[in-house]
Amino acid sequence: MIVALAGGVGASKFLRGLVQALPPEDVTIVVNTADDIELHGLWVSPDLDTVTYTLAGVSDREQGWGLAGETWSCAESMDRYGMPTWFRLGDHDIGTHLFRTERLRAGATLTEVTAEITAAWGLAPRILPMSDDRVTNTIVCDVDGAGVPMHFQEYLVRRRMADPVLEVRYDGIGSAAPGPGVVDALATARGIVVCPSNPVVSIEPILALAGVREAVAGRKVRCVGVSPIVDGAPVRGPADRLLPAVGLEVSCAGVAQGYAGLLDSLVIDVADAGRARDVEATGIEAVVEDTMMVDDDVATALAHTVLEHLEL
Amino acid sequence: MIVALAGGVGASKFLRGLVQALPPEDVTIVVNTADDIELHGLWVSPDLDTVTYTLAGVSDREQGWGLAGETWSCAESMDRYGMPTWFRLGDHDIGTHLFRTERLRAGATLTEVTAEITAAWGLAPRILPMSDDRVTNTIVCDVDGAGVPMHFQEYLVRRRMADPVLEVRYDGIGSAAPGPGVVDALATARGIVVCPSNPVVSIEPILALAGVREAVAGRKVRCVGVSPIVDGAPVRGPADRLLPAVGLEVSCAGVAQGYAGLLDSLVIDVADAGRARDVEATGIEAVVEDTMMVDDDVATALAHTVLEHLEL
Repeated sequence: MIVALAGGVGASKFLRGLVQALPPEDVTIVVNTADDIELHGLWVSPDLDTVTYTLAGVSDREQGWGLAGETWSCAESMDRYGMPTWFRLGDHDIGTHLFRTERLRAGATLTEVTAEITAAWGLAPRILPMSDDRVTNTIVCDVDGAGVPMHFQEYLVRRRMADPVLEVRYDGIGSAAPGPGVVDALATARGIVVCPSNPVVSIEPILALAGVREAVAGRKVRCVGVSPIVDGAPVRGPADRLLPAVGLEVSCAGVAQGYAGLLDSLVIDVADAGRARDVEATGIEAVVEDTMMVDDDVATALAHTVLEHLEL
Repeated sequence: MIVALAGGVGASKFLRGLVQALPPEDVTIVVNTADDIELHGLWVSPDLDTVTYTLAGVSDREQGWGLAGETWSCAESMDRYGMPTWFRLGDHDIGTHLFRTERLRAGATLTEVTAEITAAWGLAPRILPMSDDRVTNTIVCDVDGAGVPMHFQEYLVRRRMADPVLEVRYDGIGSAAPGPGVVDALATARGIVVCPSNPVVSIEPILALAGVREAVAGRKVRCVGVSPIVDGAPVRGPADRLLPAVGLEVSCAGVAQGYAGLLDSLVIDVADAGRARDVEATGIEAVVEDTMMVDDDVATALAHTVLEHLEL
């Protein structure tokens, strides 16, 4: 079994390739849930859904999130009632949230509901939420000179990353346990992959769960990451605002520094070949490859490179 | 102020006419909530929404319920997850339910939320839920020889009225209070109208609330009803199955018998002119008029007839 630690969009693109390069049932994906948010009484798990929809081949690839052919009638209706719709939920997507929320209220765990959702989409890989407990990425921003904590989605979507970031917190992390199967999957994996996701708000929350970083650090197999930073900028998302907040450079070298001791190899983009030496200064092998996954073919080639360096 | 007691579709058609015949702000509508149902964690108030959407001019007139131009993406999605979707909710409609449910969870009363919803649609009449407490029409059916209680919606929508009805219960009625303003509106009304709604599951639950029947019976103004039964059959819905269950004939005369002591006049359809004498035998004046509200003009003419007999 290969275990991949994953956030949302970047990870999903890569995972499309990974399930081409490997039998999909040999892949376990541990997905960040620290971006989850309760909206309108619905439990929304953006990364879980992005991974699920993308692997099911129904994601809106242009937009990068949500479902292709989505309709927005419910959001229109919510607008009428003056409900906050800055995090706009599509109608099909709301079906997923209604299902998840109802099952959680009925006492199911997020791990159980996720298995039900992925089964409904006929997915072969095992998709595990990082935790059944609530962990929340909280971005403390400088708003008019005051430190204001906001939910990651509020920072990202509502305020469009406009506020200077002072600190990133993982609220709830101290009392959260890794989801059932997570540590076990890592302990028995034939290889571990860190997907090209935001190191600060997608991967670190997973690693920060009790026993997870230790399981990765203490592995007897290889661990290979893919840099989400290309040519000094994130392919997508706010990593350029968040890496500096945790003292890391916005570069593949900064990513390597953050993962020092955890990765054996980091795949960096061809555009970053010149930073290979800086990556290797952290003790991580630099592997130069095309990481711009414009289509599944590039993703599959990238996955093959990763598998090579997992030495499988 | 004129106070109308109302169910869903039949009442709404009539109310479209009433707000043409009167200044809409002079109309208070007390709406049945005993058909309300919790579905997928959402609080659904079918009669309140039918009245609201119809008065707002956005109802699906052909279908008789829901919104015109509705989309059904969320229900498709729920189908995928194996959720029960026999009560099919449209996407715009779900926005209403999400709003209502969230406001109720936040501590608002149904009366308050209803005022917010009707304000959002710009409606001038005052729309009052019959109660802020939960009352549920429960239809006890003969299922293979056993008496099986089912929610009215389950009887009507899921099982399509296929089961013989043994009994109709108003679960919760003993501990439910009329909504704030309901008894007061009746006590100060210049006239009371009983809309052409199902007497058993739409009007009786309102009347059965503590003090409501007494307020109508003790009125000093006139009270006029419109028969929902035409030529021995309901214009719509299951009244033909439910009237016999409470010992009433499926006819305008049966309706009159059920309302004896409450109505001064009952408007019956031209098709039922021959039953006028039977109606009057109950002590209620029979008024013969076209009650088939194929359009707003017929509804408005009917409303004028009702107002005449309210002697305003």
